[in-house]
Amino acid sequence: MSKPIDAAEVAKHNTKESCWVILYGSVWDVTDFLPSHPGGSNIVLKLAGKDATEEYDPIHPPGTLEESLSEEARLGPIDPKTLPEPVQSAKDVGPEPNSVASVPMSSLLNLDEIEAAATKKLSRKGWAYYYSAADDLHSKHLNNSIYRSILLRPRIFMDCSKCDTSTTFLGHNLRIPIFVSPAAMARLAHPDGEWGIAQACKKFGAMQMISNNASMTPEQIVKNAPPDQIFGWQLYVQIDKRKSEDMLARINELDAIKFVCLTLDAPTPGKREEDERAKNIVDKDNSSILKDAGGHELKGGGGIGQSLFFGMDPTLTWSKTLPWLAEHTHKPIILKGLQTHEDAYLASQHAPRVKGIILSNHGGRAADTAPPSVHTLLEIRKYCPEVFDKLDVVVDGGIKRGTDVVKALCLGAKAVGIGRAALFGLGAGGIEGVERVLEILRDETMTAMRLLGAEKVGELGLRHVNTRVAERDIYDGPGGMDGLQGAVKGLLIKAKL
Amino acid sequence: MSKPIDAAEVAKHNTKESCWVILYGSVWDVTDFLPSHPGGSNIVLKLAGKDATEEYDPIHPPGTLEESLSEEARLGPIDPKTLPEPVQSAKDVGPEPNSVASVPMSSLLNLDEIEAAATKKLSRKGWAYYYSAADDLHSKHLNNSIYRSILLRPRIFMDCSKCDTSTTFLGHNLRIPIFVSPAAMARLAHPDGEWGIAQACKKFGAMQMISNNASMTPEQIVKNAPPDQIFGWQLYVQIDKRKSEDMLARINELDAIKFVCLTLDAPTPGKREEDERAKNIVDKDNSSILKDAGGHELKGGGGIGQSLFFGMDPTLTWSKTLPWLAEHTHKPIILKGLQTHEDAYLASQHAPRVKGIILSNHGGRAADTAPPSVHTLLEIRKYCPEVFDKLDVVVDGGIKRGTDVVKALCLGAKAVGIGRAALFGLGAGGIEGVERVLEILRDETMTAMRLLGAEKVGELGLRHVNTRVAERDIYDGPGGMDGLQGAVKGLLIKAKL
Amino acid sequence: MSKPIDAAEVAKHNTKESCWVILYGSVWDVTDFLPSHPGGSNIVLKLAGKDATEEYDPIHPPGTLEESLSEEARLGPIDPKTLPEPVQSAKDVGPEPNSVASVPMSSLLNLDEIEAAATKKLSRKGWAYYYSAADDLHSKHLNNSIYRSILLRPRIFMDCSKCDTSTTFLGHNLRIPIFVSPAAMARLAHPDGEWGIAQACKKFGAMQMISNNASMTPEQIVKNAPPDQIFGWQLYVQIDKRKSEDMLARINELDAIKFVCLTLDAPTPGKREEDERAKNIVDKDNSSILKDAGGHELKGGGGIGQSLFFGMDPTLTWSKTLPWLAEHTHKPIILKGLQTHEDAYLASQHAPRVKGIILSNHGGRAADTAPPSVHTLLEIRKYCPEVFDKLDVVVDGGIKRGTDVVKALCLGAKAVGIGRAALFGLGAGGIEGVERVLEILRDETMTAMRLLGAEKVGELGLRHVNTRVAERDIYDGPGGMDGLQGAVKGLLIKAKL
Amino acid sequence: MSKPIDAAEVAKHNTKESCWVILYGSVWDVTDFLPSHPGGSNIVLKLAGKDATEEYDPIHPPGTLEESLSEEARLGPIDPKTLPEPVQSAKDVGPEPNSVASVPMSSLLNLDEIEAAATKKLSRKGWAYYYSAADDLHSKHLNNSIYRSILLRPRIFMDCSKCDTSTTFLGHNLRIPIFVSPAAMARLAHPDGEWGIAQACKKFGAMQMISNNASMTPEQIVKNAPPDQIFGWQLYVQIDKRKSEDMLARINELDAIKFVCLTLDAPTPGKREEDERAKNIVDKDNSSILKDAGGHELKGGGGIGQSLFFGMDPTLTWSKTLPWLAEHTHKPIILKGLQTHEDAYLASQHAPRVKGIILSNHGGRAADTAPPSVHTLLEIRKYCPEVFDKLDVVVDGGIKRGTDVVKALCLGAKAVGIGRAALFGLGAGGIEGVERVLEILRDETMTAMRLLGAEKVGELGLRHVNTRVAERDIYDGPGGMDGLQGAVKGLLIKAKL
Repeated sequence: MSKPIDAAEVAKHNTKESCWVILYGSVWDVTDFLPSHPGGSNIVLKLAGKDATEEYDPIHPPGTLEESLSEEARLGPIDPKTLPEPVQSAKDVGPEPNSVASVPMSSLLNLDEIEAAATKKLSRKGWAYYYSAADDLHSKHLNNSIYRSILLRPRIFMDCSKCDTSTTFLGHNLRIPIFVSPAAMARLAHPDGEWGIAQACKKFGAMQMISNNASMTPEQIVKNAPPDQIFGWQLYVQIDKRKSEDMLARINELDAIKFVCLTLDAPTPGKREEDERAKNIVDKDNSSILKDAGGHELKGGGGIGQSLFFGMDPTLTWSKTLPWLAEHTHKPIILKGLQTHEDAYLASQHAPRVKGIILSNHGGRAADTAPPSVHTLLEIRKYCPEVFDKLDVVVDGGIKRGTDVVKALCLGAKAVGIGRAALFGLGAGGIEGVERVLEILRDETMTAMRLLGAEKVGELGLRHVNTRVAERDIYDGPGGMDGLQGAVKGLLIKAKL
Repeated sequence: MSKPIDAAEVAKHNTKESCWVILYGSVWDVTDFLPSHPGGSNIVLKLAGKDATEEYDPIHPPGTLEESLSEEARLGPIDPKTLPEPVQSAKDVGPEPNSVASVPMSSLLNLDEIEAAATKKLSRKGWAYYYSAADDLHSKHLNNSIYRSILLRPRIFMDCSKCDTSTTFLGHNLRIPIFVSPAAMARLAHPDGEWGIAQACKKFGAMQMISNNASMTPEQIVKNAPPDQIFGWQLYVQIDKRKSEDMLARINELDAIKFVCLTLDAPTPGKREEDERAKNIVDKDNSSILKDAGGHELKGGGGIGQSLFFGMDPTLTWSKTLPWLAEHTHKPIILKGLQTHEDAYLASQHAPRVKGIILSNHGGRAADTAPPSVHTLLEIRKYCPEVFDKLDVVVDGGIKRGTDVVKALCLGAKAVGIGRAALFGLGAGGIEGVERVLEILRDETMTAMRLLGAEKVGELGLRHVNTRVAERDIYDGPGGMDGLQGAVKGLLIKAKL
Repeated sequence: MSKPIDAAEVAKHNTKESCWVILYGSVWDVTDFLPSHPGGSNIVLKLAGKDATEEYDPIHPPGTLEESLSEEARLGPIDPKTLPEPVQSAKDVGPEPNSVASVPMSSLLNLDEIEAAATKKLSRKGWAYYYSAADDLHSKHLNNSIYRSILLRPRIFMDCSKCDTSTTFLGHNLRIPIFVSPAAMARLAHPDGEWGIAQACKKFGAMQMISNNASMTPEQIVKNAPPDQIFGWQLYVQIDKRKSEDMLARINELDAIKFVCLTLDAPTPGKREEDERAKNIVDKDNSSILKDAGGHELKGGGGIGQSLFFGMDPTLTWSKTLPWLAEHTHKPIILKGLQTHEDAYLASQHAPRVKGIILSNHGGRAADTAPPSVHTLLEIRKYCPEVFDKLDVVVDGGIKRGTDVVKALCLGAKAVGIGRAALFGLGAGGIEGVERVLEILRDETMTAMRLLGAEKVGELGLRHVNTRVAERDIYDGPGGMDGLQGAVKGLLIKAKL
Repeated sequence: MSKPIDAAEVAKHNTKESCWVILYGSVWDVTDFLPSHPGGSNIVLKLAGKDATEEYDPIHPPGTLEESLSEEARLGPIDPKTLPEPVQSAKDVGPEPNSVASVPMSSLLNLDEIEAAATKKLSRKGWAYYYSAADDLHSKHLNNSIYRSILLRPRIFMDCSKCDTSTTFLGHNLRIPIFVSPAAMARLAHPDGEWGIAQACKKFGAMQMISNNASMTPEQIVKNAPPDQIFGWQLYVQIDKRKSEDMLARINELDAIKFVCLTLDAPTPGKREEDERAKNIVDKDNSSILKDAGGHELKGGGGIGQSLFFGMDPTLTWSKTLPWLAEHTHKPIILKGLQTHEDAYLASQHAPRVKGIILSNHGGRAADTAPPSVHTLLEIRKYCPEVFDKLDVVVDGGIKRGTDVVKALCLGAKAVGIGRAALFGLGAGGIEGVERVLEILRDETMTAMRLLGAEKVGELGLRHVNTRVAERDIYDGPGGMDGLQGAVKGLLIKAKL
């Protein structure tokens, strides 16, 4: 074993020509790796010559280092006595994670209070990544407010002593109709990360979809899961397809993962200004700036949101991508990010290869003024309700209350996903915080079902909701007009398949 | 008579194993009673070993103690000299009732000002119980704002020198078309409680419905009522049916009570967070936590609202409950809490056993985003107007102005109920405060009738109101579509009756 | 001439049994007059034993004193040396009229700025009387906001070098399509009062309607008016018809007054809480409280608005009142305060006895949530457009901009009235302030006409405005449905005429 | 060369009878020129006897002085030593241009942040001129908010690796579908003025329309433009037609200018109160006040907006103006300021003489409550879509985001214009600031196109946008009803052509 290296020596290697970083107590020479870093070389150069562990750790699953670098790149252990005292990072003015006094989770009564508690505890960077949405946050807000515009229709004289919240997805039983959407970088909220979310889901029988950009490996996340715990795995296809194929091969080995969820609502990153403001990229000369999927320069910084998109394949199509995916996994395939009834209809034409769809506008983080998934549900109801027979349809975006859950179920969803809420729960109280989120939603959902007079999820239907206000605003332009439905479908199929 | 007991001795008995409390100067051993306390055992244990009178008194009608406990449980008088000085309860940070300087009731010009005056005087707990509504208070606010969206259509050249506000309900004459809805726990507002409300109603010829959870006995409330004063009595059916039957037997004996009102809009409690925040249950170990109607644990505390639901029967149905009720009372039956035209239609199919209905969403306290009763009125108007011929229809929720009263009457209601307004009136000024509430509404109602050009309540009709804005939003989904009305009704009847 | 009376002596006579007041330097014994005071006796008793001039003067036209009291009631001159120093009235916390530094009228750019300037200068009582409207000010605000919801449709390539704002009413030429609605008590704003308004109208060729409750006599107001200045006179019919007949006889003698305007939108006073708060009636014992038109007690005080209604006849009808009025005046009759197309249609059936109508909801001061006059215009357009052929239709309420003026003209009005704006102009700067109001509206109107491409008022039409938003909300209930129009009219005529 | 003149001597000549001003170091006698000054004589008299350079420079293109005055009027050089120290102008309380510390343009993430940065740096007068709009800014705000009400419809599985933002206008290729609308007085923002805007446009391939009231000459602005840079020139026709003809002759000589844009949406100035408040005209006696196009006095001051209208011809018509214009230019003609489908249709009847139209309400600066150009686009779509075949249609007003750009393109526009945004960019950072504006909009536009799944501008269509909310509100009155289209067009043509 080589002898400890002085931090002053490391500090000299802070250029593209010679770039050393300290990670977990070892000094690495990453000069040759710079051009292939998925997040771009600048983000590494910013940390050149320094201890990068704090920045690196919460956003890289274990094993990333070993996969990316050869053993020769490890130059030896750092001499800890030579390291400077850690100082508060200037770029991250929020409180350190977990530095704020905790409140008992049971004192938090609703999801807004949990977000408020998490906001106090999260780092500025972590909060900004979770909170941010595209442009003016119009879709983010609409995702929630559209539920407020739908009225419930409680019935009387219904025996509500029993209440069964169980539902199914792809034939799997779920104890509650709530799942965790694939949301990246959970360790920005809490060291327990995605594994912590899994523990809470286990307790409540909730399904969890693992992000392609999780901060832990799938193997870590599903470790020791009981046979009835249901996971999905989200795929962002890489430009370097081999990487995705390798990953799929790993997923194929994990029995706990029941399906692969191909994400389609963010082929290029939306503009998340709050995230950009807390950007982790500050670079004086623009010589090696980040580029987006189309090779276009990313200006004005670029937060975590944008750096995650590095290397994603923007060329996916129905005819090319689906067969490729089917070739590399035997697990059921579902599609995430459908925002129009036309695409829902097209997906149903690909059943049974496609088994389910997630209506989603990516939490309002992709295209601002994209429709909330309630719109897409109502469009499908109006123009092509047969989709519900061919595919399991679930939704996410904007869920804050059990009444929201119930409304989505009434409109035909089999379950609803939460993204930020799970992350904020994790930030507010770790595993216990996520449990509290699921508990609140579960209890509110049961109250709403009882007051409607529905004992089982399957009994919920259109007669339980008044959607006049929302319905008035859904799309009725070309391709969506009732009378032309048959012809339109014909054209769509001819044009796209 | 036993000799006075020292408070220090009482203080030792503060566990589930031995639980003593002081009530009205006597020491009671309630250990055996703990498991059957309607509000759960924790709420009692919290007061174990102490003088519980202040907590107990405003929410239990006289006689409750004697009914629930045997004489042996009374251990003897407390030695008053040994009691500690009373201290301001930590959990109840609001002002003590009546500690705030009073304003003359006549200086309060409208119901908002009365609520503001009451808010200053009520205890935090009392205010929270009255003010709170489900979730985000959406239905509570909608109940009122929907009236603002309806425009009046004043006519000219109508002789308005006379104005007669009288109406009828179940054949009884009411001097004003305003009644007090069954609202619980009036003694939280003022020691005169429900009896005080009755005195104000007597003065104005207003009907009063007595809550099943009144803080006084029905006998106390109707005491010395003149023959033309009209009361109803609200029934929440208990799981232990015998308790309800005993209560009905008592009601049957009271001539002043003209009908029984079966409440159906809250088979399980809504989530009233403001009430929970002011919760009277703080318990470190969760060994004997409150459960809701379905046996499900109540988390996050649980205010007065939830504790009242303990023991309520959630299994009521058209076919089971109505015949049982008819067997145990000879008084006319009305149903409270209908929120859909379907249920109104079904109720009308049960005439003449059912004689009237109250359209209500429980003041927005049950399901949040439940429709305001104006929606239900408009639905009935549109889909099954014959209901108005078969049943006396009244409404409550959101009434703040005489114009609101008049609008409900124009749409077919025979009268409108107020709940919080009466309680806030009581809190603001006792009997005089409730009188002021009724006076304001009566006067505003007369002004509105005169300006419309209607001398009598019966002359008010659809031509006096423009409901375009509200009408646009009422339900038109399955079961509600005009053309399918006949078929739908058939199905409804087949399915439910 | 009697010898001066000591103020201390006067002060003793402050009861119902003996009531003296000082007015304009004389002492009057008003004991016998108390019961017949139009504003009730309390308002007088409050000032008993004191100098009442400041209270009395701005709301009583000259001659009122002499008409009401015999010369014997004048006891003699007050001894001025014995009067106490005037003190700031406790009930009137606003600044004294004209005590605030004036701004040049030309620096005020719009009507809101003029209202703001007036608000600083007016007494609390005067401001409250002008500003106040019924209940929650919903109709007052709607009167204005409805204009904002109408879009203009400017046309291009229209020669707009010339712009002629003249219009006609009852055959009279008006230089601008803006008139001053009958608004009471102008001397609360400025000593020049209604005469001052007349001077400004003369300069701009604007029509003026004189209020029945003007603070000056009609003779004073029209004094020295040139032949082409157009006045109307507003009639509130008194219960004591002889008083109205005497007044009509005086009006018949005044050539400057071209028509009589019978006000019908306030047969009973609306509830103007701001006015009540600044009430001029504070009375400990309620022995001689104000009563409204129907003999009902007025509670909660009662501001200027209510006191003006004392003695008004609430029994007016089409069949009784119109013939009576025609008998007592030879001048054309117009009706003010129509709020439904039904009443507009009925009025048109009374042409040519009725020559014109003012669509008005009394500035939102009568029934709150009454429709804005734009609604009534649109209703007439939709259900009975022939009314425009039979009657001259004008509107008032909510006018703040020249674009508002133009929109009303596009919808069929011949002119639009302003009420508060004229009074606030008077308060802000006397005659010059009213001139500034008219100048601003005139100039804005011309700009709007030019940008629309209309040279003359008569060219403005429906094609210049987009009323989709407003039209969606107008009444379409019974009596208003298009298809039933003929039948409905038949019924209306049968029922009411 | 004459000897230097003492400033004290100049100061004596400050009246209409003898009026000297100092400009660029020379003393001029402008007494004879006063009556013919385009901005009125007062604006000059205010500066009489003083150094007027600072006021004069940013709003007059070079050469204006020499054109307007003979060489004899130049009396000689000022003696600089005799000039007083410059003091902060009292009328202009904002910061001096460029006195505020600059922020890096790349740190500004969106157009609102650029406006905020510019607001800090601009003079009060410059800011007010740019920011202001008519009356209550209703149309200005609506211009933007209407885009928020349109939802995007992102499609999935679309290859979005490529994105081509190029479009065409009148056959010219534009690299981005964004142009700079003709906006006056750019040197109020920055000394680089309109030439600076041109440099930024060159970099991004954006079209620029040069204002008739530019603060630089067209020759200066287009200097050294590469052959593929596209300019248009805006014409306000002068009452003195010869001036316009002379100007057209100059424009005809400039190859870089590809078309003439005749502005029609402001035949008379709108009322821009913010501009008036910062007015540059303060004059005690009103002897020589500004007049508007119709010869009507301009009251309440009159900002830069109004002074620019001096001398404009308000008598333009289809039949008179178009032939005259065609006679004086061989360049293609486009019309700016159409706000109704009727006018768009009429314009299409004048093709090919008219080649394109700009739908615009003058940035909300002419008629307040004029429709946003999205309305006009939707009207054309609904009533006369053939217009899109005959004319190149572009729009401006309210563009703040790339999604706004894309929405306009989906509805049929070939490109969208920005006015204030370019000026605020110039104010925030000169050329670099305008570049940042174009860069932000370009990047946001590409993101939106990619997320919709459209590679080229021409692929964007109605199926990509949900316009239900906006469509509900567009005009459907006379002349616009679907069924009557043919007849209406006939009438229109007969009446106007």
